Amino acid sequence: MNTKTISDVLQAFRQEEISLDEALEKLKFLPYEDLSFAKLDHHRAIRQGFPEVVFCQGKTVEQVATIVERLAERNKSVLATRASKEMYEAVRRLVPDSIYYELPRLIVVNREEARQDDDRYILVMTAGTSDIPVAEEAAITAELMGNRVTRVFDVGVAGIHRLLAQHEIIQQANVLIVVAGMEGALASVVGGMVDKPVIAVPTSVGYGANFGGLAALLAMLNSCAAGIAVVNIDNGFGAGRMASIINHMR
Amino acid sequence: MNTKTISDVLQAFRQEEISLDEALEKLKFLPYEDLSFAKLDHHRAIRQGFPEVVFCQGKTVEQVATIVERLAERNKSVLATRASKEMYEAVRRLVPDSIYYELPRLIVVNREEARQDDDRYILVMTAGTSDIPVAEEAAITAELMGNRVTRVFDVGVAGIHRLLAQHEIIQQANVLIVVAGMEGALASVVGGMVDKPVIAVPTSVGYGANFGGLAALLAMLNSCAAGIAVVNIDNGFGAGRMASIINHMR
Amino acid sequence: MNTKTISDVLQAFRQEEISLDEALEKLKFLPYEDLSFAKLDHHRAIRQGFPEVVFCQGKTVEQVATIVERLAERNKSVLATRASKEMYEAVRRLVPDSIYYELPRLIVVNREEARQDDDRYILVMTAGTSDIPVAEEAAITAELMGNRVTRVFDVGVAGIHRLLAQHEIIQQANVLIVVAGMEGALASVVGGMVDKPVIAVPTSVGYGANFGGLAALLAMLNSCAAGIAVVNIDNGFGAGRMASIINHMR
Amino acid sequence: MNTKTISDVLQAFRQEEISLDEALEKLKFLPYEDLSFAKLDHHRAIRQGFPEVVFCQGKTVEQVATIVERLAERNKSVLATRASKEMYEAVRRLVPDSIYYELPRLIVVNREEARQDDDRYILVMTAGTSDIPVAEEAAITAELMGNRVTRVFDVGVAGIHRLLAQHEIIQQANVLIVVAGMEGALASVVGGMVDKPVIAVPTSVGYGANFGGLAALLAMLNSCAAGIAVVNIDNGFGAGRMASIINHMR
Amino acid sequence: MNTKTISDVLQAFRQEEISLDEALEKLKFLPYEDLSFAKLDHHRAIRQGFPEVVFCQGKTVEQVATIVERLAERNKSVLATRASKEMYEAVRRLVPDSIYYELPRLIVVNREEARQDDDRYILVMTAGTSDIPVAEEAAITAELMGNRVTRVFDVGVAGIHRLLAQHEIIQQANVLIVVAGMEGALASVVGGMVDKPVIAVPTSVGYGANFGGLAALLAMLNSCAAGIAVVNIDNGFGAGRMASIINHMR
Amino acid sequence: MNTKTISDVLQAFRQEEISLDEALEKLKFLPYEDLSFAKLDHHRAIRQGFPEVVFCQGKTVEQVATIVERLAERNKSVLATRASKEMYEAVRRLVPDSIYYELPRLIVVNREEARQDDDRYILVMTAGTSDIPVAEEAAITAELMGNRVTRVFDVGVAGIHRLLAQHEIIQQANVLIVVAGMEGALASVVGGMVDKPVIAVPTSVGYGANFGGLAALLAMLNSCAAGIAVVNIDNGFGAGRMASIINHMR
Amino acid sequence: MNTKTISDVLQAFRQEEISLDEALEKLKFLPYEDLSFAKLDHHRAIRQGFPEVVFCQGKTVEQVATIVERLAERNKSVLATRASKEMYEAVRRLVPDSIYYELPRLIVVNREEARQDDDRYILVMTAGTSDIPVAEEAAITAELMGNRVTRVFDVGVAGIHRLLAQHEIIQQANVLIVVAGMEGALASVVGGMVDKPVIAVPTSVGYGANFGGLAALLAMLNSCAAGIAVVNIDNGFGAGRMASIINHMR
Amino acid sequence: MNTKTISDVLQAFRQEEISLDEALEKLKFLPYEDLSFAKLDHHRAIRQGFPEVVFCQGKTVEQVATIVERLAERNKSVLATRASKEMYEAVRRLVPDSIYYELPRLIVVNREEARQDDDRYILVMTAGTSDIPVAEEAAITAELMGNRVTRVFDVGVAGIHRLLAQHEIIQQANVLIVVAGMEGALASVVGGMVDKPVIAVPTSVGYGANFGGLAALLAMLNSCAAGIAVVNIDNGFGAGRMASIINHMR
Repeated sequence: MNTKTISDVLQAFRQEEISLDEALEKLKFLPYEDLSFAKLDHHRAIRQGFPEVVFCQGKTVEQVATIVERLAERNKSVLATRASKEMYEAVRRLVPDSIYYELPRLIVVNREEARQDDDRYILVMTAGTSDIPVAEEAAITAELMGNRVTRVFDVGVAGIHRLLAQHEIIQQANVLIVVAGMEGALASVVGGMVDKPVIAVPTSVGYGANFGGLAALLAMLNSCAAGIAVVNIDNGFGAGRMASIINHMR
Repeated sequence: MNTKTISDVLQAFRQEEISLDEALEKLKFLPYEDLSFAKLDHHRAIRQGFPEVVFCQGKTVEQVATIVERLAERNKSVLATRASKEMYEAVRRLVPDSIYYELPRLIVVNREEARQDDDRYILVMTAGTSDIPVAEEAAITAELMGNRVTRVFDVGVAGIHRLLAQHEIIQQANVLIVVAGMEGALASVVGGMVDKPVIAVPTSVGYGANFGGLAALLAMLNSCAAGIAVVNIDNGFGAGRMASIINHMR
Repeated sequence: MNTKTISDVLQAFRQEEISLDEALEKLKFLPYEDLSFAKLDHHRAIRQGFPEVVFCQGKTVEQVATIVERLAERNKSVLATRASKEMYEAVRRLVPDSIYYELPRLIVVNREEARQDDDRYILVMTAGTSDIPVAEEAAITAELMGNRVTRVFDVGVAGIHRLLAQHEIIQQANVLIVVAGMEGALASVVGGMVDKPVIAVPTSVGYGANFGGLAALLAMLNSCAAGIAVVNIDNGFGAGRMASIINHMR
Repeated sequence: MNTKTISDVLQAFRQEEISLDEALEKLKFLPYEDLSFAKLDHHRAIRQGFPEVVFCQGKTVEQVATIVERLAERNKSVLATRASKEMYEAVRRLVPDSIYYELPRLIVVNREEARQDDDRYILVMTAGTSDIPVAEEAAITAELMGNRVTRVFDVGVAGIHRLLAQHEIIQQANVLIVVAGMEGALASVVGGMVDKPVIAVPTSVGYGANFGGLAALLAMLNSCAAGIAVVNIDNGFGAGRMASIINHMR
Repeated sequence: MNTKTISDVLQAFRQEEISLDEALEKLKFLPYEDLSFAKLDHHRAIRQGFPEVVFCQGKTVEQVATIVERLAERNKSVLATRASKEMYEAVRRLVPDSIYYELPRLIVVNREEARQDDDRYILVMTAGTSDIPVAEEAAITAELMGNRVTRVFDVGVAGIHRLLAQHEIIQQANVLIVVAGMEGALASVVGGMVDKPVIAVPTSVGYGANFGGLAALLAMLNSCAAGIAVVNIDNGFGAGRMASIINHMR
Repeated sequence: MNTKTISDVLQAFRQEEISLDEALEKLKFLPYEDLSFAKLDHHRAIRQGFPEVVFCQGKTVEQVATIVERLAERNKSVLATRASKEMYEAVRRLVPDSIYYELPRLIVVNREEARQDDDRYILVMTAGTSDIPVAEEAAITAELMGNRVTRVFDVGVAGIHRLLAQHEIIQQANVLIVVAGMEGALASVVGGMVDKPVIAVPTSVGYGANFGGLAALLAMLNSCAAGIAVVNIDNGFGAGRMASIINHMR
Repeated sequence: MNTKTISDVLQAFRQEEISLDEALEKLKFLPYEDLSFAKLDHHRAIRQGFPEVVFCQGKTVEQVATIVERLAERNKSVLATRASKEMYEAVRRLVPDSIYYELPRLIVVNREEARQDDDRYILVMTAGTSDIPVAEEAAITAELMGNRVTRVFDVGVAGIHRLLAQHEIIQQANVLIVVAGMEGALASVVGGMVDKPVIAVPTSVGYGANFGGLAALLAMLNSCAAGIAVVNIDNGFGAGRMASIINHMR
Repeated sequence: MNTKTISDVLQAFRQEEISLDEALEKLKFLPYEDLSFAKLDHHRAIRQGFPEVVFCQGKTVEQVATIVERLAERNKSVLATRASKEMYEAVRRLVPDSIYYELPRLIVVNREEARQDDDRYILVMTAGTSDIPVAEEAAITAELMGNRVTRVFDVGVAGIHRLLAQHEIIQQANVLIVVAGMEGALASVVGGMVDKPVIAVPTSVGYGANFGGLAALLAMLNSCAAGIAVVNIDNGFGAGRMASIINHMR
């Protein structure tokens, strides 16, 4: 609800185009659609540059299908994360041009024109192969939001030469997303190599004293390298979104 | 075991209507029914205004069915929480007028006359769509206990305008139940908007560093807003019960 | 910022008593005072029935003194929690009628007329003697907010007869605050005895596997008695505030 | 390896019935049977009054069957805990007189004569119905070890009268086992009522901030009642064993 | 409140020696003394065989002094745990025959005649020298409650021969208290050597991943030896009390 | 060690200006200064745009003084975090133009010319007054690194109107740092209001179930708003550094 | 990338056998194979004495099959851990001489000549039968890396005589791997018996307050015996690898 | 108690040089000295190659002084860890040739002849300057036990070139001790560079989500590099001891 909207309402009221009650109502009016079980924030694309993203976990198949359908009616891009295959089947019936990425469990609608890309790219790195699903969630999110994305996978610090071999591609990235489970050390090493922002994504890859990603999360939060910020365990989407916002800064 | 009961026993004893042993026995007598695996507290409806509620988790199907049957013989309302569909099938054979709510997994018997409602309502809010099952457990509990309930779902703080748009309905509530997973921030914002009691229910909705609802639980316990108290993670029933007790205060 | 305020601004604007910019400004204007390091919400007494309460921990002595002084200029009651003696010394120089409660570490200004009390009282109970400082924080808070408070201390469940001996005073309470450290079992027992709301306050009293109050906190959250809600460890103020809100419901 | 055994070996050596090497060997010899994947301590019945108990979790079906068979060859009683139905099927083929208790998942062989019982009994109590499987593990263990056991189930503290109604049976017990999940408060209340040892068994019954029994465990460890000691979460066997040892003291 | 007391009251009432109200009062009457900040349970010596024990932590010096004084007026033995030297100074002024044990921080009043001892002894063992303060809390508690106590200190499992050298003294103990910090392994080894009850006391001795005694606590709870039960970290008193109850069983 | 440096060494080697060993040595040579207890990375200003920052915690006073002195010899700006007053005294003797900020405990040397500022600013917000020291660590760090910084303190979500009143200043920020303790909800609300990157800094402000900042940390990691990334508890420096990197992107 | 390789490149460059660009490239060149989803470090056998080991958990069946195939093309030994049966089926189709160990879930390719063994052996011990899968992972790993391995299973400390009976075999081991769940005490006892390095492997065997192996892990980290180091919970491979490195030292 | 000792006793017994009781006694006899509060294991130097090490934390000044004195009477080397300056003062009075290292808080007695060193050295590395006290505890321990030690401090991964610059010294080490707080990533990087055993020591250096060293501990346990084993947080002594055992293997 920005200043502009308030001004308009106030002007309409002064010119007696609308009554006091109507003005009150309008001031409260917000461009969301109420499905009773969900309130769709169609204004978000204007306010934050991308439509509301659907977090599917914990929702019923029907809820997901309905929400994606409604969003797809009003937006060029739709993204639904943590979607099961069954959810996608229900969505596809309603939104035939939707796509499903199985590994990162994403439902995507993308009707944007090919966007004009400049040289800046977001680099998505993983420490291991098992981290790829989370990395792909980040990469596809960033691509859908109009970024060029480069992927470098399986360059964990235990083979530091594999990482150093990527020196150039790392140096030239504009924003970096580092996805790592186990001990999450990759973020610190990369953070020390660059002067660009690093988004660290701990993953739940590991076992035992990994405690579902806690080990990597704590490591990344305690990184001795500055210029690193962290998102939730396995939150590829959040990292992709954050990187996209930064990458679009001019 | 209130004072009245003791008085009666004592009077009967003084008038030698009962022997010493009988008096002792009666003083110990309590109106529960012993099924060996469960002791049904039929007196609870008198003592606390609502019959004993059955927590189904960890009980066998047979135990649940027997307990609900016995309670339904002596009470107008019965509530069983965390019930599986299989449990309900067994209950329905014994108590045909029982109902099952699938999302919140509740078995309900409700033979009360339509109660006369006044204007006071309990407002049940959720931050997201995935929090609805817990919210419904709270709402149905409160309704069964004779309260008017209003629902406002999916008004999480990341879209603060959706929440502010509900300003009026929030202000007019008599008691509020705020159901939220993820970071649970909704409770703090709502708590700062009203001068009525807020019952906060953290949910296990989330992933990673959510740790099964711990994040929301800690957030709600540490809320910088006063006038908030918290129940266990996913404990919709407890919130509904607490809100009902408060809502009935005059 | 309630509807009434918005209406007034809108009316003034329509009648051209104020310009568009002024209206915009007023709509944003909120009755808080900006001390740069703190924003004093003088409107809170109107909005929530009691002025903003000062949480002293982590503030400098100077900050506390200044904030209390400003609040005391505009309110009849002021409450500052977790205040050191040194903070009080600084406050007293500026606000001579302020009082200090050493055990619960409260600074209080109370210029209200003696309020007319009805029969309803909040009962503040502790399991042990060491829980008294937290209980007093709750009790004094509730009293300052216009409630009659009754105290019953040191009735932990390990001597269940001491608790049962208080049966009458427990039954007649309108709201109950149960303050307990160690294993926090008192809340469950009291919760099962009454049909009134119970606010449970875990305390950090204990040692070893108590983990700073965690044991009591978890016990209270997992209470098998319904009608209990929990506040943060050692949060006597929060419990007193919550109980006061409930106790004032009619 | 008691003094008596060593003496015998030494005497045999002095009388040159055995060589130095044989003596060394015998001193090391211990009456266990080596199955390579398990070392069966047949001596334990002599050393500790009951044969080695089989913890089935994590063992293969074949391992369990073989171990129980070997133990059953040399002992009158055999107990296997945490056994699946499939394990029992394999055991029954080898040990036809073995019995399976489904709820507590125990395999039992019991060929002892009916033992002469005196008046002392172990009282096994539960807070709720869902705690019964763990309680039965304790009760059957104690019975198998030659104790009289009395059961009182579903007497949680939220209905304190149900508990107090059992006053006499509680007072007369020689040892008490208190089995409780949720907040585990029953142990504290019972501990304050008796002057006999109380073995507290936290169970994993509960949800949310129960954290798999942690809440009850911490509550019991922090009990304000003395005369309570605690075993692992869901460890009915351990409680039954401990209670049996104590109950046999004269 | 045992059956005998209730009988007496009932008889007096039937014979009209007391009125209904008086009877009610007496039934509620319990022999505790109310100091407002504490309720002294003078009846506990009768009910549980030893007077109420004072837990000093969190109490003010004045509270401790008053409580000990009152208890000392009516009991032959008084025990106060976790007492600071300053507390003792205040106590000694009021109760000159009180004694202070500095290492275990105990205040003791002991006016009992020398008790006739039989052969049974409680063995208090420690893994290390740093565990001695907790062990002494246990040992002095048990002695004050009329038990013979034997001490064996510094026999941790890393030098298993030191432990085995105590084989005889271990075998002949009637009850064992095992006090250990670090990894707490001593309890398991001792538990496997005896057929008597073992009370395990984890201590906070250690550092790093010891987490204030958590490591030893978890180890003891998970002991692969049966016949072990655990008390809170550093809870020497609780262990001494538990062992005393068991040791007095006949 | 960038490509350019390697090229130069290789060229010098081919032209036989340096021997094989010298080349090897040079390839390993890196512009750090070895003080034995510390290796000063003087090259970092070139590599990452700002000289190495000194983390004083855990270092001796002498170590801090020496390190700052050496850095100050070769750099225009020096920053030392978590510095005690005593450390600063030692530093000032060696580096007279160093400054000490007491609240955020920073030692700063700043000999840069006034930098030319454009309109972009980093907004540093706090939920409460007690969060200011951490916020100042972030703000001063960012200023020292050449950013314009705006501060808005004490706008926690429990008084949402105080936050909304800052709407304009929030909207116009280029990067936002949100510093909050307690339940850390401010990050989520701000994150939902803007389309710019938000760096969330949990603080250890709070008590009880706050667990030293864990509550705020988890809340921020689980934020339902996208576009948020998190740094360690109380890590104002890290947030300032990260924000500066982002703010300098063109 | 060792000094030798760099020298060669430099020499080739000086002799103008390769251009500057080629030299640069070669210096970066590292002998790994890029499968896009994995970077196979074929050089590791040279650098660390054994080829890269495949951690299968979290990888797709196809990824595992491809990686093992590529490694098997260039190495005599291949090891894949945490492999499901389904993964093995896919591998066997591509690498027919691969073997599957079901209990420890290992895929092994072993084409080495029988190696010449000396007397030194690694002793792999377990506390219980349920620890065997982890122990076998360690043992097979060590054997594959050319070590003689001796196994002693089920010698937990609760039957200390079973352990002492293995005294000789323990004393003569060159390196010891101690695998234990539950309370993990075996490591401390063994650590005190020998003057050789002990690698402790906590397992997730247990339940309740075991917390998935945390109890054993903490116990081992806090061991009062020196000469013990710990690997992750259930990390048999890591222990086998570490023991092999040590055992090969001369 | 090795086989040789048992043989001697048995032979003496057969030849009737000693009686049965004497033999029994001797078999139990172990060369420790009983100070009542401590049992000094003078045999340990023979059994494990170095005398018992004194862990001073939790001991009284007098206990430490006495223990060190007794050990110094019978051994050429004595080591006491975690010793306060006050403890050292007391020790020095009794053992004038003892030395105190202030940073690592060690008391050392070293009367060994200069030992003949070969080329093998233990490399002790730290990530930061603040880790040096723990590193020195490890280094001095290893030196006292007869090892050559090389130190490389402050080579954390955030400046990977500082670490790579030490490539040669790292490659040539025989055993490596990696000491790191914060996120502990150094262990993984070093572990991937060498084919020698790496002992990782997490330190409590850090703040916030470091949780007293937990972050580094978990990172090291979850290291993706094999050949690493971990000791307790801040356990420099344990690492030095372990490294010494390994370094002496031939």
